[in-house]
Amino acid sequence: MRQSEYLLNTLRERPSEADSEGHGMLLRGGYIRQLAAGIYSYLPLGRRVLRRIESIVREEMERDGVQEVMLPSLQPAELWMESGRFETYGNNLMTLTDRHGREFVLGPTHEEAVTSLISSEVSSYRKLPVRVYQIGTKFRDEKRPRFGLLRGREFIMKDAYSFDLSEEGLDRSYRTMLEAYNRIFTRCGLRFRAVEADAGTIGGEGGNHEFIALSAIGEDTVALCGHCGHAANLEQAETAVGSAKAAAFENDAAVSVTPPRNCDQHAANNQPANNQSAPKDLPPLEKFNTPGTGTIDQLVSVYGLKPEDIIKTLIYRAGGESVAVLVRGDHEVNDLKVGKYLGTLDIELADGGAVEAASGVISGYVGPVGLELPLLVDHAVAAMLEGIAGAGERDFHFRGVRPGRDFPLTQVGDFRNATEGDLCPRCREGQLTLHRGIEIGHVFKLGTRYSSKLSATYLDSTGAQREMIMGCYGIGVSRLLAAVAEQNAGEGGIAWPDELAPFDVHLIAVSMKDGAQSALAEKLYVKLKEQGLSVLLDDREERPGVKFKDSGLIGAPQVVVIGREAASERVEYENRISGAKEMLGLGEAVLRITEHVNNNRI
Amino acid sequence: MRQSEYLLNTLRERPSEADSEGHGMLLRGGYIRQLAAGIYSYLPLGRRVLRRIESIVREEMERDGVQEVMLPSLQPAELWMESGRFETYGNNLMTLTDRHGREFVLGPTHEEAVTSLISSEVSSYRKLPVRVYQIGTKFRDEKRPRFGLLRGREFIMKDAYSFDLSEEGLDRSYRTMLEAYNRIFTRCGLRFRAVEADAGTIGGEGGNHEFIALSAIGEDTVALCGHCGHAANLEQAETAVGSAKAAAFENDAAVSVTPPRNCDQHAANNQPANNQSAPKDLPPLEKFNTPGTGTIDQLVSVYGLKPEDIIKTLIYRAGGESVAVLVRGDHEVNDLKVGKYLGTLDIELADGGAVEAASGVISGYVGPVGLELPLLVDHAVAAMLEGIAGAGERDFHFRGVRPGRDFPLTQVGDFRNATEGDLCPRCREGQLTLHRGIEIGHVFKLGTRYSSKLSATYLDSTGAQREMIMGCYGIGVSRLLAAVAEQNAGEGGIAWPDELAPFDVHLIAVSMKDGAQSALAEKLYVKLKEQGLSVLLDDREERPGVKFKDSGLIGAPQVVVIGREAASERVEYENRISGAKEMLGLGEAVLRITEHVNNNRI
Repeated sequence: MRQSEYLLNTLRERPSEADSEGHGMLLRGGYIRQLAAGIYSYLPLGRRVLRRIESIVREEMERDGVQEVMLPSLQPAELWMESGRFETYGNNLMTLTDRHGREFVLGPTHEEAVTSLISSEVSSYRKLPVRVYQIGTKFRDEKRPRFGLLRGREFIMKDAYSFDLSEEGLDRSYRTMLEAYNRIFTRCGLRFRAVEADAGTIGGEGGNHEFIALSAIGEDTVALCGHCGHAANLEQAETAVGSAKAAAFENDAAVSVTPPRNCDQHAANNQPANNQSAPKDLPPLEKFNTPGTGTIDQLVSVYGLKPEDIIKTLIYRAGGESVAVLVRGDHEVNDLKVGKYLGTLDIELADGGAVEAASGVISGYVGPVGLELPLLVDHAVAAMLEGIAGAGERDFHFRGVRPGRDFPLTQVGDFRNATEGDLCPRCREGQLTLHRGIEIGHVFKLGTRYSSKLSATYLDSTGAQREMIMGCYGIGVSRLLAAVAEQNAGEGGIAWPDELAPFDVHLIAVSMKDGAQSALAEKLYVKLKEQGLSVLLDDREERPGVKFKDSGLIGAPQVVVIGREAASERVEYENRISGAKEMLGLGEAVLRITEHVNNNRI
Repeated sequence: MRQSEYLLNTLRERPSEADSEGHGMLLRGGYIRQLAAGIYSYLPLGRRVLRRIESIVREEMERDGVQEVMLPSLQPAELWMESGRFETYGNNLMTLTDRHGREFVLGPTHEEAVTSLISSEVSSYRKLPVRVYQIGTKFRDEKRPRFGLLRGREFIMKDAYSFDLSEEGLDRSYRTMLEAYNRIFTRCGLRFRAVEADAGTIGGEGGNHEFIALSAIGEDTVALCGHCGHAANLEQAETAVGSAKAAAFENDAAVSVTPPRNCDQHAANNQPANNQSAPKDLPPLEKFNTPGTGTIDQLVSVYGLKPEDIIKTLIYRAGGESVAVLVRGDHEVNDLKVGKYLGTLDIELADGGAVEAASGVISGYVGPVGLELPLLVDHAVAAMLEGIAGAGERDFHFRGVRPGRDFPLTQVGDFRNATEGDLCPRCREGQLTLHRGIEIGHVFKLGTRYSSKLSATYLDSTGAQREMIMGCYGIGVSRLLAAVAEQNAGEGGIAWPDELAPFDVHLIAVSMKDGAQSALAEKLYVKLKEQGLSVLLDDREERPGVKFKDSGLIGAPQVVVIGREAASERVEYENRISGAKEMLGLGEAVLRITEHVNNNRI
């Protein structure tokens, strides 16, 4: 492609609408343009990258025999009502009414449409398993579209669905997809992790994994173990019992606990001994005055306490009842884990009034001692020797609160988010680190969730009717493009990985007015195109500075500068990723470029 | 692909929803399925054909340097209001309101979006011309979706747009596209014509062409000249003056005209002599009683008259005024031509009451003689020596009505549809034939229609601001698939042309239980795949009858039957288009198949 004829308009400055590095560079490089909030046009450069992603996805799907279909965006609302998702998606659904008054959903995913299709096409066990995929546009009425293509309202997805005879079949389909996804994201040059994740609205009871591209602007947090490679979404990440204990003992030495007083009033609350081998002669509870310090931060700053020595007591409303959840002051409650423990999705932190009604004291001074509510105690709290907690009385806290003695440990569990430095719950050797990331893919075991609601059944070999066992597998194609941009955006532009670059190589003729340069550029351009490479030739009559700046923004992985030594058929070859530059003869350059492409493409 | 694993469900009977041959075969063959009226899912077989079409379109666009972009489906309604099309599209637009109450259009085409994009990317003459295309989903709320993919509500289109400096530039872009379209439709194996056409809602003042695939179920009619190749949409097709004259003279000999009487009362209407060299001693007008025969058909059947001897007088309301249009009894008025002549789009046939109000007589007996309305006389009427016409009096007609003598010939023009047998208006040698056809592509010269409304301007070399000169170019991709299906649907299925077939070759092992057959089938399958061909292997344990029937419905252009002679490595090769069958050895078969594909693919 000759740049003089190419629809490419780079921007000198980062536009104010850009809210991340990658987004800014996609705009500056002339890859995308916003038409409306969360709705983008792809210029030729962006479309090229998108096509490369699409073709990688297609290759990897078809390698495993997944068959391409195409399902409509317009889907009858009735279908979504049947599955129950018309309600659960709520305002996130884009809907419209046709001229005859019939309501349609613009599909954000296609579980309903594909289940309905397969149920009408397949009736016998002999035709299963079936695995299909499509690449197409999805719609979602995001409340706050953000980060360009990352959280948009119209976006491109690859969605795949598997239909199996049995759970074992689903396991095979699921594993096949997991492997394909690993290949796809690897080929796209991403730093990513497959993490255990929560199922969200699509649901499903079996396992599910999120693929997370590591990035500071990501809206997900993942906990990673550097020792065994364990990775989990923060929402799901287990915490190991031992980690908290270890931390508690470590911290213990550093904490100066004032000897407790006035503990007699709480004797009634004493419980059978905790399993810890704690010193037996711990001092009793001591109440102390803490006016206006109802938060952990205030306690820390006013009294010089350490957050990890404080027991935080939070009141939740769960299924209409109040419960207290106890976590360490340096930990955070994980609502999802509490909900799962209680077997409800209807859970939220109680507001001030509800806290007072349930505990008899204002928020900030609630404590476990004497509290007449179910107490869900996080492992890390149960492992504390003693701690500081609200006294259940305005402006007072207790020192020397001892779990098991001063409040019951009948409901101990994992109720908190993992934190940096936690012991890995899997290998129990490494420590967890937390990372922000962008969700680029998601695989779910759906089981019979949709097949039962939409009657997707088959006859087994005995003639009995059974429900198909489903899985679904998504990749955010446009989001993946954005994630790659985030990971590879530098000062001068995006350094595209080889398999995704819009062009394999960018040729820059420093001065097109110089006959030797323009002739050599043309010659190299033709030779490289003959090799089947995609080549962009900057044949514009622009100043060299403009050309180099644009080249950075375009971000081809290989750049050839045809300059002063053109007369002797020598050019400067640059590997953009490594930054290495060298002068090569024409033939050497062609060879080097072709080899590079062959070595870096699967 | 192994058929045992392929998502393919053929139907024995034509489903009742099928309203054409091609539609029926696409359903029976398991290519597409309806999700809602005018909304279809593509099964793997259909998706494969679609992909082949898409790749032909891409190749031919990119061969000419047209650059791929991707514009969103969701477009702010304001943009459509700016262009004025929000109103003109009316109920055909699919619209929705987002959660913030903002209104969007689901694009049926992308003139607004692309004009707005290019106007922000291009500001200098040095960056023009620009030619872009995309392949994507479009939405149109058709009142009556029909013929499967032919008239749907969600469909796939390739739309391209050109932006030029000048009318000459537009001419070049337009010609480039015309040629690309010819290549595309030729590669798709279509019988088609590029015809002059009307601009429809997209508008534009310059030329425009429709590409019509000939098919009996088509909703368009085209007039073709077998002599010079001239082709025009019936709405636009000119009629030659000479043709009508010739016909009138020919018919003359066969008509027995009763000598006219009582012509005196119309002497006042006589006009300066018509330019024809007609006999001077024609008899005068004769009124005759024609009770209850107010239509051409009734006059023909009751009085044995010939339609071509009758002058039909139709009253139209045009821009609030009444006019009379005169055409021969065997001709039909072309509203578009009348409207163009009068310079208005607001034209419709008057209803009974309006006819009586304007002419003073009931519909069916209106005639030109003495009629006090503007008379638009079609060439073919002006060329008649004499004819029969309504007498302007209930139950009476005139014989011997002479154009120019009995009514004025001041406004003579081309006001009718072309008919079969008309002289070609271009070469004036061939005769026109009429054909039904399906519109598969359309190219328009838009000029400044959108660039002026959406301010798409550039600075020319003198620094003056000028409007970009646009063209737009559409191909109905899913419609093209349907048109190919219509043209190639036979008793047993669709015989796909080579470039579009879902598979290059279909291998049928008659009995998979026969070890020699299954082994040979497998061997051939692997060998052909090694050649890079797309191969479907029927490895199912089905009766041969079922396999052959399914093979017909799948419609691969080459079929290989592995049967009785498998032990001696001989197979039956069939060219499905020619029907020729022959026994070949394994090596010969591979060679024959590979050659066939190489010879039939561009």
